[in-house]
Amino acid sequence: MRKQAACIGGGVIGGGWIARFILNGWDVNVFDPQPGAAEKIQQVLDNARRSLPALADVAMPSEGKLCYCDTLEQAVENAQWIQESVPERLALKHSVFKELQRYCKSDAIIGSSTSGFTPSQLQKNSVNPGQIFVAHPFNPVYLLPLVEVVASVDNSVDLAQQVLQVLTDIGMSPLLVRREIDAHIADRLLEAVWREALWLIKDDVATTEEIDDAIRFGFGLRWAQMGLFETYRIAGGEAGMAHFIAQFGPALQWPWTKLMDVPELTDDLIEKIASQSDRQSGAYSIRQLERIRDDNLVGIMRVQKAHNWGVGKLLKAYDQQLLAAQPQPAVIPSNAEPLIMYEGRVLPAWIDYNGHMNESHYLTVLSAATDNFMAYVGVDEDYIAKGGSYFTVETHIRHLAEASLNEELQVTTQLISCDRKRMHLFHRLMHMPSGKLLATGEHMLLHMDLNSAKTCFASEDVQGRLEKIFDLHVLLDKPQGVGSAIGVRS
Amino acid sequence: MRKQAACIGGGVIGGGWIARFILNGWDVNVFDPQPGAAEKIQQVLDNARRSLPALADVAMPSEGKLCYCDTLEQAVENAQWIQESVPERLALKHSVFKELQRYCKSDAIIGSSTSGFTPSQLQKNSVNPGQIFVAHPFNPVYLLPLVEVVASVDNSVDLAQQVLQVLTDIGMSPLLVRREIDAHIADRLLEAVWREALWLIKDDVATTEEIDDAIRFGFGLRWAQMGLFETYRIAGGEAGMAHFIAQFGPALQWPWTKLMDVPELTDDLIEKIASQSDRQSGAYSIRQLERIRDDNLVGIMRVQKAHNWGVGKLLKAYDQQLLAAQPQPAVIPSNAEPLIMYEGRVLPAWIDYNGHMNESHYLTVLSAATDNFMAYVGVDEDYIAKGGSYFTVETHIRHLAEASLNEELQVTTQLISCDRKRMHLFHRLMHMPSGKLLATGEHMLLHMDLNSAKTCFASEDVQGRLEKIFDLHVLLDKPQGVGSAIGVRS
Repeated sequence: MRKQAACIGGGVIGGGWIARFILNGWDVNVFDPQPGAAEKIQQVLDNARRSLPALADVAMPSEGKLCYCDTLEQAVENAQWIQESVPERLALKHSVFKELQRYCKSDAIIGSSTSGFTPSQLQKNSVNPGQIFVAHPFNPVYLLPLVEVVASVDNSVDLAQQVLQVLTDIGMSPLLVRREIDAHIADRLLEAVWREALWLIKDDVATTEEIDDAIRFGFGLRWAQMGLFETYRIAGGEAGMAHFIAQFGPALQWPWTKLMDVPELTDDLIEKIASQSDRQSGAYSIRQLERIRDDNLVGIMRVQKAHNWGVGKLLKAYDQQLLAAQPQPAVIPSNAEPLIMYEGRVLPAWIDYNGHMNESHYLTVLSAATDNFMAYVGVDEDYIAKGGSYFTVETHIRHLAEASLNEELQVTTQLISCDRKRMHLFHRLMHMPSGKLLATGEHMLLHMDLNSAKTCFASEDVQGRLEKIFDLHVLLDKPQGVGSAIGVRS
Repeated sequence: MRKQAACIGGGVIGGGWIARFILNGWDVNVFDPQPGAAEKIQQVLDNARRSLPALADVAMPSEGKLCYCDTLEQAVENAQWIQESVPERLALKHSVFKELQRYCKSDAIIGSSTSGFTPSQLQKNSVNPGQIFVAHPFNPVYLLPLVEVVASVDNSVDLAQQVLQVLTDIGMSPLLVRREIDAHIADRLLEAVWREALWLIKDDVATTEEIDDAIRFGFGLRWAQMGLFETYRIAGGEAGMAHFIAQFGPALQWPWTKLMDVPELTDDLIEKIASQSDRQSGAYSIRQLERIRDDNLVGIMRVQKAHNWGVGKLLKAYDQQLLAAQPQPAVIPSNAEPLIMYEGRVLPAWIDYNGHMNESHYLTVLSAATDNFMAYVGVDEDYIAKGGSYFTVETHIRHLAEASLNEELQVTTQLISCDRKRMHLFHRLMHMPSGKLLATGEHMLLHMDLNSAKTCFASEDVQGRLEKIFDLHVLLDKPQGVGSAIGVRS
C-alpha cells in the first residue's frame, strides 16, 4: 500500500520534509501557494537526491510521487501524515489547522515544524486537538536525523507511538521531549549561543568568521559525535562527572555572559553582521554552500558509521530497515545457468575522482555475490556460528568497463570446480538491463574450521548442494578469462 | 637547533600541550610536583601518538625529548616557550609566574592556558608583564587546532607574531582575540549552553543523554564544519543574512531561556547529573571514550581535508609545513628496493563476521597503494585535472593471512614492467612490525585520456619517472606468485 504524506508549506524546512518522504518511497502532496514554491522544492530535492542515498550502503526504495495541489483540500484528504511548515506565527498556524481539519482524515497525524510553540498552544480551539503535535526537524531535514517530538496531554500514547514509528521509518531519530517547553530543547541551546554571539560582534570582540572558527576548529568538532555531557565526562577524567561539576560549577557564578540582555537589532548592527558575513562567505553562492555543507555532513556521518558510533549507529539501523523492506533477490533457476547472486545499484559512496565506480568497490560487489553464494549452499549465519566458513585465498578481477552512479548491477556466479575443501567461483558483474559485462571475478575459497583456523571438510549438506550445482555448471562453457594470469601481452 | 618548551602543570590540558610539542619535534621539560603526574602525561601521550599522526598525509618529525624536572628552575631556564596549565586560581597563577620569571630567559614566551582570566589580570604585579599572554587551547589539545591568543597593551606586536608563528608551526590555528574579555570567545558560548542545559536537567525536560543527542544528531553535525553564522547564512537563503536576522531577531525577545539565573548546584542536582551520565556513558571507561572521541575527530577532520574545507584546509597547510621542514625523499630512489606506498591500520569498518579484515578491504588498501604510486610518479590531482589518469584493468589478489582490528599495515610496491601506456605493479601487503605477508596484489593499469575515454601515452615526465624506477626494480627478484593463474592444483 502506498504511503501518502501532505506537506503544507514548501520553504527550506517544508522542502526538506518533502525530500525525505519522497526518497523513502512515500507519495507527497504539496500545498504552497507562494510564487516560485515548486522551483525551491525542486532545488531542495536535487540536493537531497545527491546526498541522502550516499549515507546508505544499500539501495533506497523507489521514489514516491510528488504532486503539487491547488487546494489544501486536495493535498490533505487522503494523507496519513500531514506536516505543517508555515511561517512562525501562531495565528497563521491556527488558521491552517482549522482549514485542513475540515478535510483531513480524523486519524491523520498532523505534525508541526514549529521551532518555538508548544503543542498546547498549537492545539488551542482545535476541533480535534489530539491529532496535532510538534515534530521539529533541523536543516537540512533530508540529512540531519534529529526531530524533536513534543506532545500535550491531549495527545494519546498511541499517537506518539505511531509518530515515532513513521519518523524512524524515514530514517530520522525522534527525540520525545519529556515536557512541553517553549522552543523545546535544541533551539533553547542555540538561542543562548546566538545571543552571546550577537554581543561579541556588537562589542567588536570578534567577527562572524572568528566566531565560526572558534566553533568549528574547537568544540564543534567534539559536538558532532558526543555532545556536551559526554565530552565533559571525559574532561573530568576518572574522578567522574560529579567531581567535574563541582570544579566547573563556581565559574558559572562569574558574570561572563550577557545572555538575557538582547542587543538591540539596530540597522547598524544588522549591516555589520551582514557585511562581515559577506566577507566571510560571499565567495560562495548559497547553492554552493548547501552542497559543501551536505558533502561534509555525509562524510562526518559516514565516519561515525564506520566507527559504529553516535549517528552512525542510527545509519546502520536505517540500512537494516531499508534492506528488510526490499524484495529478496530473484528466484534461482535449477538449470544449467550461472546463478544470479547479486542485484543492486552503484552507490554514491563508491564513486571516485574519475566519476566512476572505484576499483575497490568492484570487489565489494563481487564479495557480496560470494557471500550470497555461500549462504545459498548452506554457509549461512548459523553455519558460521557453529565454526565453519569459507575463506577467500585468491581473487582475480578483470575490469572491462566503467560503471556510473545509480546504474543497476547484477552478478551471476558459475561454479568452476569444487571438492570437500575448495570451491572455485567465477562471477560476471554486469550492467543492467543492457547485460554489458563490466568485470569478471575469479575466486578460490578454502573451507576453514574457525576454531583451529585450519582447513577442514565442509559439512555433507554443503558439499551435497555444491555437487548438485557443479553437475549442472560442468555443462557450461568454461568462461573466457578463467585461469588466466596477468602479464604484458604486447 | 633544538626547540625547547617547558610545560608547568601536566593535567589533561598540560599533557595535551606536552604531546603536541613532543610530536612536533620540540624537546619538553615538565614541572608538575603532583603525585602520578608522569603516568597521566604518559596516557595523554599514548593517545596523541595514535591519533595526531593519523591526520597527516606526510610523516611527522622525529619526536622531541621529554624530561621531568624536579624544580621549576630546571624546567624553564632554557625554554623558548613556557606554557602554564595550573588550576584556574588567579593567586596560584600569579605565584607560578613570579617564581618562574626568576629563572626563565627574559625573551622567553610565557603562555597561560587559562580559560577565564584576561592577560591584564595575569600580568598584574609581574616583573616582566610583556612576556605573559593567554594561549587557551581545547581538549584534546593534541588534536583540536583552535587556540585563543589574547594579548594586553603590555604585549608587543613582535611577541604576538612570534606566538602565532610557534602555534602555527605545531599545527594549531591561533585565533587572535581582538579585545581582552573574561573567558575569551569559545568558553562564553559554551557557558551559555552549559547553563541552559543545567536548567533543562534540573526541570526534568531532558536527561544528559537526550541533550547530547539533541546536539550530536542535529546542529553539532553542522558546527563541525561551518559554525553559527555560515550555517544561518544558508538558512537565510538568497535573501541574505540581513533578511535572516530581521526574521529571526524578534524571537530573541521572547522569554525562552533562563540563562543568567544559575541553578543552584545542590548535592541533589550534582547526583542527578552524575547518575544520568553514568547510565549514558558508564559502559565505557574514560580511556575508551577518549579513543572513541579521538578516532571520530580524526575521521571528521579528514573528511574536511578530502573536501578542502574548514579544518581540512588547516590540515593541508600543516602537511605542507611538515613537508617543507623535512629532507625531501629523492623523487627516484637510489637503491633497488620496493617502495613503501601505504601505511595504516585495520579500521573497525573493515572487520567482517569472522572477526577479520574483510576480503574486499584488502583491495581498499591495495588500491590506496596504487593511488599513492600514481601520485609518486606524477599522476597527481593536477595531472588528473588535465585529463590523464591510469585505470586498473586487471587485479590478482592472493590472500595469505588474516588481519585483525587496529593491526598496523604496510604496502610495498614493485614495478614489474611498464611502457608508454601500461604499468604492471606488484604490491606486498604486510603486517607491521612483524613484516608478515598478508596478501599480494598484482595490478595491470592502462593510461587513459579521460576526455575520450581511450588509452593514450602517459606524459614524458611520468614515463621518465617510471623508467627510472624500472631500471632499479628490474634488478629485484621476480616476486613469488607474479603471473600465476587461479586453479585447483591438487
